[in-house]
Amino acid sequence: MGEFELIRRYFLPLGGRQESRSLILGPGDDCAIQRIPAGRDLVFSVDAFVEGVHFPRNYRPDYLGWRALAAAASDLAAMGADPECFTLALTLPAVDEQWLEDFSTGLRSASDAFGLELAGGDTTSGPLTLSLQVHGTVEQGRAVRRSGARPGDLIAVSGTLGDAGAALDYLAEPGPSPDMLAVLEHYHRPWPRLDLAVAVRQYANAAIDISDGLLADLGHILAASRAGARIESAQLPLSPALSRLKGDKATDYALRSGDDYELCLCFSPENWEHAPESLKSQLTVIGVVDADPGLYLDGVDCSLESVPAGFDHFRSES
Amino acid sequence: MGEFELIRRYFLPLGGRQESRSLILGPGDDCAIQRIPAGRDLVFSVDAFVEGVHFPRNYRPDYLGWRALAAAASDLAAMGADPECFTLALTLPAVDEQWLEDFSTGLRSASDAFGLELAGGDTTSGPLTLSLQVHGTVEQGRAVRRSGARPGDLIAVSGTLGDAGAALDYLAEPGPSPDMLAVLEHYHRPWPRLDLAVAVRQYANAAIDISDGLLADLGHILAASRAGARIESAQLPLSPALSRLKGDKATDYALRSGDDYELCLCFSPENWEHAPESLKSQLTVIGVVDADPGLYLDGVDCSLESVPAGFDHFRSES
Repeated sequence: MGEFELIRRYFLPLGGRQESRSLILGPGDDCAIQRIPAGRDLVFSVDAFVEGVHFPRNYRPDYLGWRALAAAASDLAAMGADPECFTLALTLPAVDEQWLEDFSTGLRSASDAFGLELAGGDTTSGPLTLSLQVHGTVEQGRAVRRSGARPGDLIAVSGTLGDAGAALDYLAEPGPSPDMLAVLEHYHRPWPRLDLAVAVRQYANAAIDISDGLLADLGHILAASRAGARIESAQLPLSPALSRLKGDKATDYALRSGDDYELCLCFSPENWEHAPESLKSQLTVIGVVDADPGLYLDGVDCSLESVPAGFDHFRSES
Repeated sequence: MGEFELIRRYFLPLGGRQESRSLILGPGDDCAIQRIPAGRDLVFSVDAFVEGVHFPRNYRPDYLGWRALAAAASDLAAMGADPECFTLALTLPAVDEQWLEDFSTGLRSASDAFGLELAGGDTTSGPLTLSLQVHGTVEQGRAVRRSGARPGDLIAVSGTLGDAGAALDYLAEPGPSPDMLAVLEHYHRPWPRLDLAVAVRQYANAAIDISDGLLADLGHILAASRAGARIESAQLPLSPALSRLKGDKATDYALRSGDDYELCLCFSPENWEHAPESLKSQLTVIGVVDADPGLYLDGVDCSLESVPAGFDHFRSES
């Protein structure tokens, strides 16, 4: 099978399936064409996924298709953007039809679930690597940035933290317990918080998705906002499964492990006050933004840890 | 050096340098933001470049930075789009500061030359692979597609063909002759035909960039347009250097080798008549579009060769 046949069989079916608001020419030409509705901005982000770095060798291809698009889409949620379409650059060691079938099935599930239509791509031979770029739109000037946190803002996170990181310990477990299965589900099938995008752009001053770990990602908000913060480890939202599996170490996972794709948000007290219960019930307040620099965890400054920490792909070589 | 420091030092300087018409938030947040001017469409394309597949191992990093952005930008030229910005997903085996310095220098030269500003990216560890997505804009409805060729259209190509393909034979030449240097320049420093974009959208019915070889890429136009063509090998524009180096084989290079990043365009006879001399002087008419299927080269149908041919990355495995 050649490159063109491969694209035709596995990837063209992912284009033109949604009632896209903006994609007017999908895969198959030199470029795709998107018509951004009047009064809206294009919001976009690219993420690379490398075998052995971002996912294990011989990782299930249907999980890979889902996870990669979920991780990329999470950046749209963090900006408060509505999903539109995506591109895929896929590098494969060889044409394995079963692998492609399974991968495109996982990708298609995510594409449907997140409302992201395939706009274009490139498929080549080489070490297994994916690069996905997601496109969303948001009302002009309403995208939420990392730099908007203000002293006094409440810091909140969505969902529970640390599950995906803990799952790494059980990927090769031959007979996983129900608790292990619960955290593994977070790792294999993350859900980007696109459901919160409307609330993010309506109420939040700053937002980031937690891909590298809470301390690292909150550190990015503080650096961009030139602010500090105080957070309390006792407030961290932990799943029952994580607490049972990791005991006293559960907090470490919630603070320092990545791949959760939850959101970290900063709200002015007034906005928090006015936010609907339907939003607040999905969030947990873990601390407050400070004018003074430093990221204080239970009173101890861990900002030196937070700045270059998280999942820093080059730290080992530096 | 960590990932964030690496990005800050080598890649952030490529953002915010141009008087961008549309990029309103560049690298450093969860997403970049582009505001497409009213009445214009976003036009975008992604290309992957893998070491050992798209460029030789230990290839000069400054050449790599230039070539990769040039190749990606060529797709914008083929749509008749004006360049705006690009994203880069870069996977590197290790942090080599000299390599990064040279790579970003080549990339910056191309960024300046083509008017493409860095909008965002992702940098990770792994086998050397690049994925670049270029964004352009064009007046709504004016993007030129592959599917617009009509029977009777004249087929023209820009520049000269085959030089970059011939250069592959001399990449390791210790003392290259002036002719070898001339074709090597085409390979190392291709110029996407963004200078022709205005003419493309004003006069051409269909367009494609010649990245995989003339027969393959013209084949894409014919397949999308459900048409055939007759072309004459004697009309192919060959550089003097290629003719001297390859003699009777020069035509084969012009027909079947890739990496030239010239354009193949189809014009109605009326539009060709009215096109300015400044455009025509950069183009060579090589044939005509036919209602009957088939791609006839000097009267011999080579459409079976043209359809899956060219630089098909998976052909050897199929």
